[in-house]
Amino acid sequence: MFPAVELLDQAWFHRAAEHQSRLAMPASALGRLLPLGQQLCAIQQTLLPTAEPAAVVVMAADHGVTQEAVSAYPQQVTAQMVRTFLTGGAAINVLARRTGTRLLIVDMGVKVLPPEIGGHPGLIRLSLGHGTRNFASEPAMTEDQARTAIARGSRLTECLIAEGIQVLALGEMGIGNTTSASALAAVLTGVPVDQVTGRGTGIGDEVWQRKCRVIEQAIARHHPDPAQPLSVLAALGGFEIAGLVGVALQAASRRRLVVLDGFISSVAGLLAARLAPAAPQYLVASHLSVEIGHRHVLQALDLTPLFELGMRLGEGTGAVLALPMIQAAADLMREMLTFDSAGVSGRSSDA
Amino acid sequence: MFPAVELLDQAWFHRAAEHQSRLAMPASALGRLLPLGQQLCAIQQTLLPTAEPAAVVVMAADHGVTQEAVSAYPQQVTAQMVRTFLTGGAAINVLARRTGTRLLIVDMGVKVLPPEIGGHPGLIRLSLGHGTRNFASEPAMTEDQARTAIARGSRLTECLIAEGIQVLALGEMGIGNTTSASALAAVLTGVPVDQVTGRGTGIGDEVWQRKCRVIEQAIARHHPDPAQPLSVLAALGGFEIAGLVGVALQAASRRRLVVLDGFISSVAGLLAARLAPAAPQYLVASHLSVEIGHRHVLQALDLTPLFELGMRLGEGTGAVLALPMIQAAADLMREMLTFDSAGVSGRSSDA
Repeated sequence: MFPAVELLDQAWFHRAAEHQSRLAMPASALGRLLPLGQQLCAIQQTLLPTAEPAAVVVMAADHGVTQEAVSAYPQQVTAQMVRTFLTGGAAINVLARRTGTRLLIVDMGVKVLPPEIGGHPGLIRLSLGHGTRNFASEPAMTEDQARTAIARGSRLTECLIAEGIQVLALGEMGIGNTTSASALAAVLTGVPVDQVTGRGTGIGDEVWQRKCRVIEQAIARHHPDPAQPLSVLAALGGFEIAGLVGVALQAASRRRLVVLDGFISSVAGLLAARLAPAAPQYLVASHLSVEIGHRHVLQALDLTPLFELGMRLGEGTGAVLALPMIQAAADLMREMLTFDSAGVSGRSSDA
Repeated sequence: MFPAVELLDQAWFHRAAEHQSRLAMPASALGRLLPLGQQLCAIQQTLLPTAEPAAVVVMAADHGVTQEAVSAYPQQVTAQMVRTFLTGGAAINVLARRTGTRLLIVDMGVKVLPPEIGGHPGLIRLSLGHGTRNFASEPAMTEDQARTAIARGSRLTECLIAEGIQVLALGEMGIGNTTSASALAAVLTGVPVDQVTGRGTGIGDEVWQRKCRVIEQAIARHHPDPAQPLSVLAALGGFEIAGLVGVALQAASRRRLVVLDGFISSVAGLLAARLAPAAPQYLVASHLSVEIGHRHVLQALDLTPLFELGMRLGEGTGAVLALPMIQAAADLMREMLTFDSAGVSGRSSDA
């Protein structure tokens, strides 16, 4: 029922590595750019991969759990930031322009959008409703809603692929969504709540302790089974997280690279991996966020981030910042000369 | 006699930080991009900085110390790689194209350049001669040569600045130049030779031990005084390293950001810092190289690299890969809306 994801053929990694070994440079001198190039080759089944055009899908939704006062910012900031995205003045707008990345702003379930925002031609309207329910007292959404959100993310991705998009970067906005992501991460990774629960947008000690308690009690109440990822998502998730699961699954299903951003989008990646075990092969971790749960989620995915800049903004900002590196990795496969073609001497025999 | 470098005015850092504190995002959520933006503001004395157009200056030269069999590749590879740069097929060509960076290939003293390379219209000819002397037995160059190489790098940079270049990235190519850079690093940082001497382009244990011994003996022979950076450079340096010192000094003198690449260009940055103590304020460390001495040189400069990708190619590859991040840092200063201008609510009082 979810998009099927094929395991990559290891032969493509070997072919790509063999080509890289002949490029005019010392062995492995380009470091992480080389396995990144191999991954692109294996995904695209070619030695001439490309990583553009790229799109960043920023999904926004509200979270009922903000009723528990777990966030540093009021809930209306979700809608206000959607407006900022639509007027081009948020960080993700700046970074998408810098990197030539197509930016899609998606309403997956913002609580209240004033007409001038809700009706903005730049907004993609896939809303599941006015935010999730408060998972401190009831499941955040029904399994049907979770399935629908995934399907909507998948369908959007299908359209982007039809328009030629080669790389999908994940972004999100939703006041309260680190609470949801921490709850999901705790259940899916088995790491204790206080080790996957961070400061979000900047809460103090007292709010952090409340946030941990709310998550622990919610897990005790819903006792979600990590072997049933859809029910975990329904109990503790968010509409934007569910939508991003759909983006990741459909992109992987259609052999497109998926670039994770920070903690929340990585939790979406982990859910995709639990629904389709081959999915991590299509993922790249862009950066390591300050949010403390991120490390555990990436470990569960067996992914190593490309950089660690102390970022914790979300919106897809880290993912988009990684795109030039990923595009460089593809370019190097296609455009670098080999020792032979460049007429460059190999290693001396006595080295 | 060298270009004078002014200390940055701390007031610009404060003004930039104050502006950043009002941008529509949680405090510090963009991590390292924020101090990077402040540095650009302080260098350019504006709250609307720009980091383009950028140029990468790749200086090539040969090293007499290759006579000691310290390198994995034969000396003629320097000239062959210069040819590869000129035909557009090296890694740095690919990365410069990807990032829209102007690429300058400079002969600072390659031993033998066949006429079709030496006379190539794309090659900037600032050669000091057919490679340095073997510093195992005599000083690599005279102090006059070191001064001339610095002056030529400075003059080239002056031309680039006149053409509008805002950011200068440093790159190099020269078989044997990690041996020179390790010797310089040992003298300038005081760290023992075996801790700043790495595997270069990929030497084995036996060659590595010889490389360390050659450096130790050369330091014992020339007993260079770290308080006399020009004489250290003359005794143990390379023409391309000296030229890059000139690029860094002139760029800093003219208030332009300088992006270091790996170990060798960072040693040039350290020499610039010893000649002009304010120079490090104009430097950015792009990546941390695999070459083991790099960490010590960056520590001496009090710089933290933006990323660590296991690269060790040189050519300016890491520096150019960092340019999109640096340009993003400038863009964010210029283009992001503030909470007020975006109409976004601030933090809740109880967080």
